[in-house]
Amino acid sequence: MKKINVGIIGYGNVGRGVEKAIERNADMKLVAILTRRPEQVRKEIKDVHVFHTDESLPKSVEIDVAVLCGGSKKDMPIQGAKFAEKYNTVDSFDTHVDIPSYFKKMDSIAKKHGNVSIISAGWDPGIFSLERVLGGAFLPESKRYTFWGKGVSLGHSDAARRVKGVSDAIQYTIPIEKAIQRIRAGDTPDFSKREMHKRVVYVVPEEGADLKKIRKEITEMPKYFEGYDTEVIFITEKEMKKHSTFPHGGFVFTSGVTGDGNRQILEYKCQLENNSEFTASILVACARAAYRLNEEGYRGAFTLLDFPLNFLSPYSGDFLRKKEW
Amino acid sequence: MKKINVGIIGYGNVGRGVEKAIERNADMKLVAILTRRPEQVRKEIKDVHVFHTDESLPKSVEIDVAVLCGGSKKDMPIQGAKFAEKYNTVDSFDTHVDIPSYFKKMDSIAKKHGNVSIISAGWDPGIFSLERVLGGAFLPESKRYTFWGKGVSLGHSDAARRVKGVSDAIQYTIPIEKAIQRIRAGDTPDFSKREMHKRVVYVVPEEGADLKKIRKEITEMPKYFEGYDTEVIFITEKEMKKHSTFPHGGFVFTSGVTGDGNRQILEYKCQLENNSEFTASILVACARAAYRLNEEGYRGAFTLLDFPLNFLSPYSGDFLRKKEW
Repeated sequence: MKKINVGIIGYGNVGRGVEKAIERNADMKLVAILTRRPEQVRKEIKDVHVFHTDESLPKSVEIDVAVLCGGSKKDMPIQGAKFAEKYNTVDSFDTHVDIPSYFKKMDSIAKKHGNVSIISAGWDPGIFSLERVLGGAFLPESKRYTFWGKGVSLGHSDAARRVKGVSDAIQYTIPIEKAIQRIRAGDTPDFSKREMHKRVVYVVPEEGADLKKIRKEITEMPKYFEGYDTEVIFITEKEMKKHSTFPHGGFVFTSGVTGDGNRQILEYKCQLENNSEFTASILVACARAAYRLNEEGYRGAFTLLDFPLNFLSPYSGDFLRKKEW
Repeated sequence: MKKINVGIIGYGNVGRGVEKAIERNADMKLVAILTRRPEQVRKEIKDVHVFHTDESLPKSVEIDVAVLCGGSKKDMPIQGAKFAEKYNTVDSFDTHVDIPSYFKKMDSIAKKHGNVSIISAGWDPGIFSLERVLGGAFLPESKRYTFWGKGVSLGHSDAARRVKGVSDAIQYTIPIEKAIQRIRAGDTPDFSKREMHKRVVYVVPEEGADLKKIRKEITEMPKYFEGYDTEVIFITEKEMKKHSTFPHGGFVFTSGVTGDGNRQILEYKCQLENNSEFTASILVACARAAYRLNEEGYRGAFTLLDFPLNFLSPYSGDFLRKKEW
C-alpha cells in the first residue's frame, strides 16, 4: 500500500512530536522537515531530508500532506497560506478569535489549488470544540464548562518572566476540584473565573530582587492574573529543571436536562503527560484524513466538525462498524 | 424558517423521550406518532396525529424524518426497511453483531429512494463508538476500555425474571471503581469481565419460593451471570416500585503512549438520570442531521462516523467556528 508522505513544517516541540507519532502509524512516512535552522536540524537527523522553510523542494521529494507545526500568531497565518497552495495541510491554529477569518482564507486557497486543509485540529481548539458542539446538539439548553489543567500556560509563563527581577518563571493553570465536583453532582452554577481555575507560578528571582514586589506585580497583573487566586513560589534555577516536562489536560462538561427534569451529564477528560506530543498525534491522524479526503474529491478547509470522522482512522468504515461499533 | 417535521415510529420509553426532546428543539416539529396501539395513544395525546404503524398516511401529513423507536431485535429490521423507502430515518439499532448487515440493507434502500438513514445512533452504539474510534485514531497502539453503569440491563433483568420462583426482578450493572482508578492512574491491564463489572439483582420472590435455589440459579446462569460477582437482594413488591426510573451511564477510556513513553489518557463519561430520554435526545439531533444531509444531496446510510458532525447542531459551521471553537 502506498504510504502517506508527510512533511513537517517547523521543528519545535510539536514538530518533534509529529516525527515520533508518524513512527507509530504504519501508513504514514516522514519525507521532509522544513525549518528555519536546517544546519542545526541536519546534525540531529540523518535519514530525512531537511530543507530551509523558504527553499523550493526538489521534484524527487513528494509531499502529500504538510503538517504546520509553527506558532499560531506569526508562523501559521503565513505558512498556512503558502503551503496550502502546494499541498494538503494540517494545523492546530489556536488563536480562537481569528479562526473564522483563517478558515475563510485557507478554504479559498485550498479550493483554488485542489487541496484539503484541516485547521485548528489540536485538543483545544479541536477535540474539545467537537465535544462542546456535540454536547450542545444532544442537550439543548444545557450548560457547558471547560476546565484546563493542571498544565503549563506558555502565555502566562512569558508574562511572569517579563516582571522586573524575574530570571525565569513557569505558570501552571489548575482547575478547582470543588467546581468540578459540583458539576458532577448536578449543579450548574455561573462560576466566576476565580472559582474555576487557580494559578501557580514558580519563579526564579534574580539575585537581590524584591520578592514582595515580584509577588505583588504578578498576582495583580491585568488580563493574566487579575481575578484569579495566584500563588507565587520562589525556587532556585536548579529546582526549575524539574519543570521541563509539559503535562496538561482538561475537561469539557455538558450538563442538561431532558423530559421532566432528568439531569444528564457528559464529561470529556484528557490527562496528558505530554501536551505537544498529544497535539502532534491528533495532527498526524488529521494528516491521514486530509490525504484521504483529497483522494475522494474533497477540496477546501475543514475543522474536525466538517468532515466524516472515520477519515481519521486507518481502518475502513466497514471494518469500524464491525469491530469498534 | 421551515421546521423539520418528525414522525415517531413506536411510542414506548424512547418514543416518549423523542416527543419531549422535540419540545426543546425550536427547529423541529412533531407531526405524527405511529404505533401498534393507536386507540390507546390517542387517549393520551390530543394535538398530534396518531396512526397505526401499518396504516398509509394521508397526504396532508408530511414527514421529513421518521424516528424509529421500536426494539432492535424485531421492530427495526422490518420498520427500518419499510420507512427508509418513504422518509429519511434515524434509529438506535443496537444489536452490535448485526450492524454491518443492517447498514448495508438501509444504505441500499435509502439510496434507491433518495433518502438518508442514520443508524445505530444512541450512546452505545453511537457516541461511545465514536469515542472509541477517535481514541484509536489519535493514540495508535492504545488500549480502550468501556464500562457501563451503574444502570439497568433489560436483558439481564428478563433473564432473572425467568428463574422459577421469581415474581419480578431488576438487574443493575455496576462498574468496578478499582478498575477505573487503575486506568486513570496509567495502568493498562487485561481485565477479566469480573474485574470490570459486578451485577446486583433485586428479586421479588413468589410466596414460599426457595430463596437459596433462586440465588444459586441466578448467580450461576451461563452467558448472563457466570463469571461475574453477582449479588442477589430479595425485596418486596412495594420496594420494587423504587426501581422504576432508569438511570444509566458509562465510560470509554483510551490509554496510550506517545514519544518515549508519555502516557496520554482520554476519558469520556456519561452520567444519565434517564437512559431512554438521553437516547431520544441523540436521535432528535440526528433527525436534524438526516434532514439537512438529505437537503444537501447526501443519500444512503450513515453512522455517527460517516457524516460531518456539524450537521447535528442547529447552528451553521460559520457560527460554530466563531462561538464554540
